[in-house]
Amino acid sequence: MLKNKLIKTALLCCMLYLPVLVMGQPPRGPLARSPIVNADKTVTFNYISATAKDVKLSGQFLKAPATMTKGAQHNWTVTVGPVAPDIYPYNFVVDGISVMDPANEYFFTNERFKGSLLDVQDNPPLIHALQDVPHGTVTYEYYPAAGGTTGTLVVYTPPGYDKNSTKKYPVFYLISGTTDTEETFFKVGKANLILDNLIAQGKAKPMILVMPYGNVEGRIAEQKGGKKPADPAGRESDEAVTRALAFSKDVTQHMIPYIDKTYRVLPGRDNRAIGGFSRGGGETLRTGLGNLDKFSYICSYSAYLSPAEMDKSYSFVAGKPQQTNKLLKLLWVSVGSEDFMYKPTSEFLDYLKAHQVNYKSMISGGAHTWMNVKNYLATTAPLLFK
Amino acid sequence: MLKNKLIKTALLCCMLYLPVLVMGQPPRGPLARSPIVNADKTVTFNYISATAKDVKLSGQFLKAPATMTKGAQHNWTVTVGPVAPDIYPYNFVVDGISVMDPANEYFFTNERFKGSLLDVQDNPPLIHALQDVPHGTVTYEYYPAAGGTTGTLVVYTPPGYDKNSTKKYPVFYLISGTTDTEETFFKVGKANLILDNLIAQGKAKPMILVMPYGNVEGRIAEQKGGKKPADPAGRESDEAVTRALAFSKDVTQHMIPYIDKTYRVLPGRDNRAIGGFSRGGGETLRTGLGNLDKFSYICSYSAYLSPAEMDKSYSFVAGKPQQTNKLLKLLWVSVGSEDFMYKPTSEFLDYLKAHQVNYKSMISGGAHTWMNVKNYLATTAPLLFK
Repeated sequence: MLKNKLIKTALLCCMLYLPVLVMGQPPRGPLARSPIVNADKTVTFNYISATAKDVKLSGQFLKAPATMTKGAQHNWTVTVGPVAPDIYPYNFVVDGISVMDPANEYFFTNERFKGSLLDVQDNPPLIHALQDVPHGTVTYEYYPAAGGTTGTLVVYTPPGYDKNSTKKYPVFYLISGTTDTEETFFKVGKANLILDNLIAQGKAKPMILVMPYGNVEGRIAEQKGGKKPADPAGRESDEAVTRALAFSKDVTQHMIPYIDKTYRVLPGRDNRAIGGFSRGGGETLRTGLGNLDKFSYICSYSAYLSPAEMDKSYSFVAGKPQQTNKLLKLLWVSVGSEDFMYKPTSEFLDYLKAHQVNYKSMISGGAHTWMNVKNYLATTAPLLFK
Repeated sequence: MLKNKLIKTALLCCMLYLPVLVMGQPPRGPLARSPIVNADKTVTFNYISATAKDVKLSGQFLKAPATMTKGAQHNWTVTVGPVAPDIYPYNFVVDGISVMDPANEYFFTNERFKGSLLDVQDNPPLIHALQDVPHGTVTYEYYPAAGGTTGTLVVYTPPGYDKNSTKKYPVFYLISGTTDTEETFFKVGKANLILDNLIAQGKAKPMILVMPYGNVEGRIAEQKGGKKPADPAGRESDEAVTRALAFSKDVTQHMIPYIDKTYRVLPGRDNRAIGGFSRGGGETLRTGLGNLDKFSYICSYSAYLSPAEMDKSYSFVAGKPQQTNKLLKLLWVSVGSEDFMYKPTSEFLDYLKAHQVNYKSMISGGAHTWMNVKNYLATTAPLLFK
C-alpha cells in the first residue's frame, strides 16, 4: 500500500517535473526561476532534476563550488553571497558534468566552454548596465577577408551616427581572447552599453567599435571545409606568432579597408585605436606596434609581449623611445593581480620603463576575467581620441 | 603493485584528459572535434568525458537517441546518417543530463533549452547557406517600448541599403516562438542569409526584416526587477490572449513608429508584412488581422487561430470576405504534417475556405521545427511586396 502510494507519487512527480522530452528536441523543462538576485544581493540558483545525485554551482563570484541541496519538486537550490555587482560566468556541475543554467537565456559566447551569465545590478547603475540614455546600434557585418574567406565583424556605431548625416567618427578595434568569438565583446563585455553610458556622461568621444573574430587561420580552415586547428602551445611559439601575424594582416589588408569604405570614419592613425584581451591583447600589441603608421592608441588588457620578443621583433619600440613616445598617444597595459599572466605582464611593464617608453598601466584586483575586461574598457575608452 | 600502477594511470589520464578546472570558470576541456560532417554526409559526434557512464546523442535528425561509445582518450563517439542537408538542433545526454556540445560554438538561441546546431551543407548550397553574394547587415537595436521598457530588435537591411542613399524599402516583421528570443530568426532561422540569397537570385524584393522579442510582458517584468512570468496555459486562454495583444500593441505603438523613424522605409500597409512561428505565428495573426490598416501581408508559420476565436475576435475577416480579400494581398498559413499543431491549423484553413477568405497554404513534411521555418520563410519572402 505504502509502496503503491510511493510509486504513484513518484509517477506524478515525474509527470509534473521531469523535462518534457520531445523526440530529438532539447528538453524544455519546467520553468525553474534562476538565477534570482535578492534584495540583499545574495543570489539564489535553482536547477530541477529528478535524477541527479549531486549538483554544485561553480562561478567566478565563488572561491569554491557551492553544494546545492534538493528540495520539493526535485528543485536543487543554493543561495550565495552577497555578490558584488557585476556580470559573472557560472555553470552547474551535475553529477560531475558541466551544464549551463537551463532557465537563463544569457550566456558566455565562446567556442569551447558553455557558461551562463549572472548579472548583479547596482544602484546607481554600473557603467555596463542598460540605462535610459541614447543608444548606439550593434551591427553584424560580413567582410571580404584573408584567404578568400567571408569574415565576420560586430560593429558598434554611437548614438547620433545618423544614417543621413555627414559626421565622421574615430574607430576603436577591439579583439577578444582565445576561443572567444566576435560576439564576446558585445554579449559578455557589454562594450556597446559601456560606450553608450560613457558618451552620455560626456566622458568618452563618440566612436565606432569594430569587434572581429581573432582566429583567422581557424576561419580559413573552417570555410575550406576543414576544422579549426587546435590552439598553439605557448604564447610566443612559432605557431602562435605566425597566427597572430596572420590576424594582423587581416586587420590591415581587409578589415580597415572595409570599415573605411563602409562607415563614416575619420581618416588616419590619430583616429584609430586597437585594444584586446588575452590572445586578443597579444594580437593588439603585434598589430599596433607593427603598424604604427595606422594606430596611435594601443590598449593591452591582460596580455604582454616578452622582453625577448620585444627585442627580436619590435626592437624599434625600445630602441628609439623618443620616436615611439611621439607616435603613440597611448600605450596602455592592464592586468589583474591574481591573473596567471600577472608576472609576464609586469615584466613587460618593467621592460617599457627600463627603455623609457611611455605607457599607462593599471594593476587591478581579480584574475583573467571579463569582469576585468569591462573595467579596463571603461577606463581606457575615455583616454582615446583626445 | 598493479593497484599502484592503475592509480598512476588513472592520475595520468585525469591530468591529460579531464577538463582543466580554473576555479570558478567553466571548464575548458581538451579540444574534441565535433561535429564532423563526413564526405558521405554521415556525421561524427565526439564528447570527451573520463567520468561519464552513458552518453547519448539526441537531435532533430534522429528518430531516437543514438548511443555513443567510449574509445581511446575518454572520447565518446558516434557516427550517424547520412543526414539530409539542413541545420538541426542537437544535444548530448550525459548520464541522463542534457548538455550542449562543448566543441561547437553554434547554438540555438533560446530562453529555456540549450541546444547546439549541426549544419550539414549541400552542393549547390542551400538557400540559407552563406554564399558569395552581396550581404545585407544585421543590426541590434534598442527601442522605447511598452511599459517604459527598453525593447530589443534585430534588424536586417538588404545589400544596397547604402547609408547615404535615398532609396526606401518595404518592411517584414518576423516574430519567433515561445522561449525563442529576438535573435532566433537570425541565429537559427538564418533569415539574413535567406534574404541575401533570394535577393541575389532576383527572387525576392530587397526588404528590411525586423525581428523583435515576442514576450512583452516578460520583458516588462524583468526590467522592473522581477522575473518573467511562466508561459500561459493554452494558446487561447485569457492569459495567452492578453499577452498576445500586449505584443500587438507594442508592434503598432512602439516598433513601427521607431522603425519608420530610424530606417528608410516605404510608407503604408502595402509595404508592410508580418510573419511568425508558433507563438509568434499566433501573434502575427492577431497583429495582422487586428490591424489591417497597417499590414497587407500576413504569414503564419505553424500557427493558427481557432474557428471559435476567429468568430469571437476577428468576425469581420470571415464576415466580410470580399473586403478581407481586397485588403490582404497575402494570407499565408503553413504547417508540417507531423507538427503537433497540424490538426488545429488544418481547422483554421478549413474555416478560411468555408468562409471564402483567400489564403495560400503549404503543408510540408516534418514537425514543429526551425528546419520548417527556414523553408517557409524562403517560400514566402518571394511573395511579398509584388
